[in-house]
Amino acid sequence: MAMAAARRWGAGMTGRGGSRWLGLGPGDDALVTPEVTAALAEATDIVGYIPYVARVAPRPGLTLHPSDNRVELDRARHALDMAAQGRRVVVVSSGDPGVFAMASALFEALEATPEAMGTDIRILPGITAMLAAAARAGAPLGHDFCAINLSDNLKPFEMVERACAAARTGRFRHGVLQPPFRLAPASVCPRAGGAVARMCGRTG
Amino acid sequence: MAMAAARRWGAGMTGRGGSRWLGLGPGDDALVTPEVTAALAEATDIVGYIPYVARVAPRPGLTLHPSDNRVELDRARHALDMAAQGRRVVVVSSGDPGVFAMASALFEALEATPEAMGTDIRILPGITAMLAAAARAGAPLGHDFCAINLSDNLKPFEMVERACAAARTGRFRHGVLQPPFRLAPASVCPRAGGAVARMCGRTG
Repeated sequence: MAMAAARRWGAGMTGRGGSRWLGLGPGDDALVTPEVTAALAEATDIVGYIPYVARVAPRPGLTLHPSDNRVELDRARHALDMAAQGRRVVVVSSGDPGVFAMASALFEALEATPEAMGTDIRILPGITAMLAAAARAGAPLGHDFCAINLSDNLKPFEMVERACAAARTGRFRHGVLQPPFRLAPASVCPRAGGAVARMCGRTG
Repeated sequence: MAMAAARRWGAGMTGRGGSRWLGLGPGDDALVTPEVTAALAEATDIVGYIPYVARVAPRPGLTLHPSDNRVELDRARHALDMAAQGRRVVVVSSGDPGVFAMASALFEALEATPEAMGTDIRILPGITAMLAAAARAGAPLGHDFCAINLSDNLKPFEMVERACAAARTGRFRHGVLQPPFRLAPASVCPRAGGAVARMCGRTG
């Protein structure tokens, strides 16, 4: 575990705290990387969306900070603040922290508070649901592929349509995430065969 | 580890062997999932491309079958044959087994030898290099994104150009894999900012 051992919390940075923006994978503990497990074991604070924080077992010395959806930027600032005060803060996402998850909020928060760059910040990748679902479905993403978020909560629906059209033109395998309930995936990508995966790797 | 425990080798299938088509992640042991570690520990045979097989520690009772590049289909058939004979065969890929890796050869081999469908076959996802590189670079794939294999070894170069053009139209973040040496990524996607990652998570 060369990479994990080489980067202790706060090493070479301001203070002895830091933040780890990590991915818990799609749900099964068997898909959580050892690097992530080690970071969780050393954390003093867990920050994240309520159902993801609930996947971390409580223990003495660990404070859980669950918060609701749509407060990602506040959550990221809170995590950076605590890290600056010397806490070891883990920000949990499901799947991978980069894929439509908290790493984007991290960089948005850093733009507003560049002094937080002096703290120890690391992003730890996770198994994204797209790969887990493809493996379970026997439909490997074996050629060029793309991931499209079908939700129009944070962008105009025209951007969703444009991305789907481009995916067809480029002959990408599609992994579509968060289909809005009013839309079946087939209505966006009418000629595509596909699988619908939900709670991949979770039993509950 | 509900998922791993629920699926023993050969459970409910012909024989007591099986095959696991798994991803070793980009290189660091700290990024190998517990599910993959468990499968490797129970394997009797390891099949794969020479440098990936070299990442598995030899032990008594384990036979290593390294093979060279471009014999993926032969390798897949060999793995299925051994599994049908009751061996516990692990086929290793780097990263994720679906992403430009051995899972595609598995399904090609299954088309030719459908009787192998009676054996216990599972694909176990891995951390693909694209996610690990994005995490290390601080460039999360936080919006719609795509993966494009820039190699024209197995497809005409026009398909590469078409995919890159579609990626621009769809405003995808790009993860490009295996750039051919004669091409810099910037020459394919001229206006793109980017990072070049190599041996991500490996120290050697």
